[in-house]
Amino acid sequence: MSKVINGNAVIGQSGGPTAVINQSLVGLIETLRPCTAIERILGARHGVRGIVAEEFIDLRELDEKTLETIADTPAAALGSTRDKPDKEYCRKIFRVFEKHNVRYFFYIGGNDSAEAALIINDLAKDSGYELRTFHIPKTIDNDLRETDHCPGYGSAAKFVASAFMGDDRDVVALPGIKINVVMGRHAGWLTAASVLGRQDESDGPHLVYVPEIPFSLERFIGDVSEVYERLGRCQVAVSEGIADEDGTPIAEVLALKLGKEVHRDEYGHVQLSGTGVLGDFLADYVKDKLGGEGENKLRVRADTFGYLQRSFAGYASSVDKAEARMAGRKAAELALSGDIDGTVIFDRPEGGPYEVRCRRGELKDVARHTREMPREYINEAGNGITEAFREYAMPLVGDLPVIGKLM
Amino acid sequence: MSKVINGNAVIGQSGGPTAVINQSLVGLIETLRPCTAIERILGARHGVRGIVAEEFIDLRELDEKTLETIADTPAAALGSTRDKPDKEYCRKIFRVFEKHNVRYFFYIGGNDSAEAALIINDLAKDSGYELRTFHIPKTIDNDLRETDHCPGYGSAAKFVASAFMGDDRDVVALPGIKINVVMGRHAGWLTAASVLGRQDESDGPHLVYVPEIPFSLERFIGDVSEVYERLGRCQVAVSEGIADEDGTPIAEVLALKLGKEVHRDEYGHVQLSGTGVLGDFLADYVKDKLGGEGENKLRVRADTFGYLQRSFAGYASSVDKAEARMAGRKAAELALSGDIDGTVIFDRPEGGPYEVRCRRGELKDVARHTREMPREYINEAGNGITEAFREYAMPLVGDLPVIGKLM
Repeated sequence: MSKVINGNAVIGQSGGPTAVINQSLVGLIETLRPCTAIERILGARHGVRGIVAEEFIDLRELDEKTLETIADTPAAALGSTRDKPDKEYCRKIFRVFEKHNVRYFFYIGGNDSAEAALIINDLAKDSGYELRTFHIPKTIDNDLRETDHCPGYGSAAKFVASAFMGDDRDVVALPGIKINVVMGRHAGWLTAASVLGRQDESDGPHLVYVPEIPFSLERFIGDVSEVYERLGRCQVAVSEGIADEDGTPIAEVLALKLGKEVHRDEYGHVQLSGTGVLGDFLADYVKDKLGGEGENKLRVRADTFGYLQRSFAGYASSVDKAEARMAGRKAAELALSGDIDGTVIFDRPEGGPYEVRCRRGELKDVARHTREMPREYINEAGNGITEAFREYAMPLVGDLPVIGKLM
Repeated sequence: MSKVINGNAVIGQSGGPTAVINQSLVGLIETLRPCTAIERILGARHGVRGIVAEEFIDLRELDEKTLETIADTPAAALGSTRDKPDKEYCRKIFRVFEKHNVRYFFYIGGNDSAEAALIINDLAKDSGYELRTFHIPKTIDNDLRETDHCPGYGSAAKFVASAFMGDDRDVVALPGIKINVVMGRHAGWLTAASVLGRQDESDGPHLVYVPEIPFSLERFIGDVSEVYERLGRCQVAVSEGIADEDGTPIAEVLALKLGKEVHRDEYGHVQLSGTGVLGDFLADYVKDKLGGEGENKLRVRADTFGYLQRSFAGYASSVDKAEARMAGRKAAELALSGDIDGTVIFDRPEGGPYEVRCRRGELKDVARHTREMPREYINEAGNGITEAFREYAMPLVGDLPVIGKLM
């Protein structure tokens, strides 16, 4: 089995964009280019969709400056897709690969993308067709298994932490109750990042609710009331995916209580991202329960951070950028080293200053499944985030602004 | 009339916070401190509210490092207020000033704050009490009269421009129609800033709607449809304050059309800031009109940028920071130069590289009234922003990220 096989390479990007997914793309391109066995380096437009449609962009001849600018641009330069290919879809992909003599396939994405890569890779194996398939992890949700953390998370976490820092000062200046809804349907990693800018006990967010803990409206109102009594304000971080004991999304629970309607997508799922519905409902509920009248009327506001969390330009974490680049490079190096497949895993050695080591992992270990936050990152009461999480997440975010206070 | 009068100084902050309002505060403190005639430099907690309650913070003894950290922190370090004092309220303030021998009063805020300063100043004049009152402009809305622009605007504009840049790439990656709601009830200055990161004709936002132009749902749907046909995507910037020919807020118009409810505040105004209602309604309306089915189903999303626009930490415009500092210094210098009152005005000399000159203006000229965008900053069709606006606004924002593209 030769180390390098002659043929072409295809790179695709998939799922929700991040601020650094293009770093991984450029890491792949710059590592594959020197290899003469790879004739063409093809970018698939909109992931698997572009492969099936044979819509490719030639990535070999891009100059350094263009590459660096692309690396530093958020979202997915090749275009992305929400398609989750089944076996039939994957067969089409495989036929395109055969047709174009594609021998290297790199797919940058989350757990669904790892699964697509796995299916395609298995089809190649079954046909005795040498295909070196690598998945490069990316997700602001940080919910992939095996790896210590995911490229894309650090930058989104930096955005969320900075947003909470400034917003907390806003709530000090004009006191009241402020609810901020953060992305994360199933895992609270990004919502937890809201605490990273806290400088002392009085800083917000004062309450953090993540999907890992069943959400109780009654406890929520009690918590908010207690903080407000104590500090004269309360800043709350809430994952969009919070649900009650039965798994019913809180937006739905509140819609019933408040006599309102919710938006559902074509699959009947309550639509959460990019809409203010959960935040508005929670704010209405707080007003309803703790409202007050006239002079004593509570100021209650809500923001839903929406897509800015994953796409904001010019504010990525430099650690995250470097690691996303490294993940792309590592995948290319591994694929060039022999007939192997897999995903890129980050290990963090224990003790000593922060450091990350890249290694190969198995596609099957990251495909499909997601990873919730460990219980030790959430406080006992289930309404806050622990110091252990801060220690975990701070190195991924890098420097945060410093807040000065007079009151 | 002596140049300097012995007595104390009071500084207050008012209205919606900005990313640089504390720069003006520190500019005042550092300029007043060397003056021995000013015994105490008092910060009023929560503006006029703190004056009446005699809640002051001593600002004289803060060390350099603390001052610099505060200057670089968003929101209002002294606390802010929404109180718009009437004559009776102002009389109470004036009595507190007499009691504490306050001879210098600096109020950092928008047009309402200028009006409060004006009333208090007139009370002092009528009583033959020497009070040197200065208003220091701040507002992300950029809607004060006389001045070329307002401290606070450049940073909010930078945030909005960067958000649109990244978000546009997100919409390229996962195509569809994206509606972003930007702060601005009466003037479109901040919404207009959405175009500042555009690098070529294909870049979003493709449509911009500001309160200065009556909004027509029919024209809106036609515009969106035309752009989507042409580019396969459409990114839209919308001021929260858009209203129809009769001045009815579009959120209200749509609520009726879609059979939904709107939030109203205690004065019966439809609540816009910090809620997703306008964006969600517009998205629903687009789905309704241009929706499509199954495979051809349009992806329509909305974000409401909310409070992040004024409070995000760590991403202020350096031009805006320096100018807000300068405005504070200038107000203090003027107040120390003789028995005068006024506000700080920025003039921009025509021709040559960008430059700003500070001068004194009359309180009455900025009090109460606001300033809309000149018609020349809005395109003829009323759905976009002109090059003339870009030339006006770019110097205030400073460097923006550079976007790299493959498609």
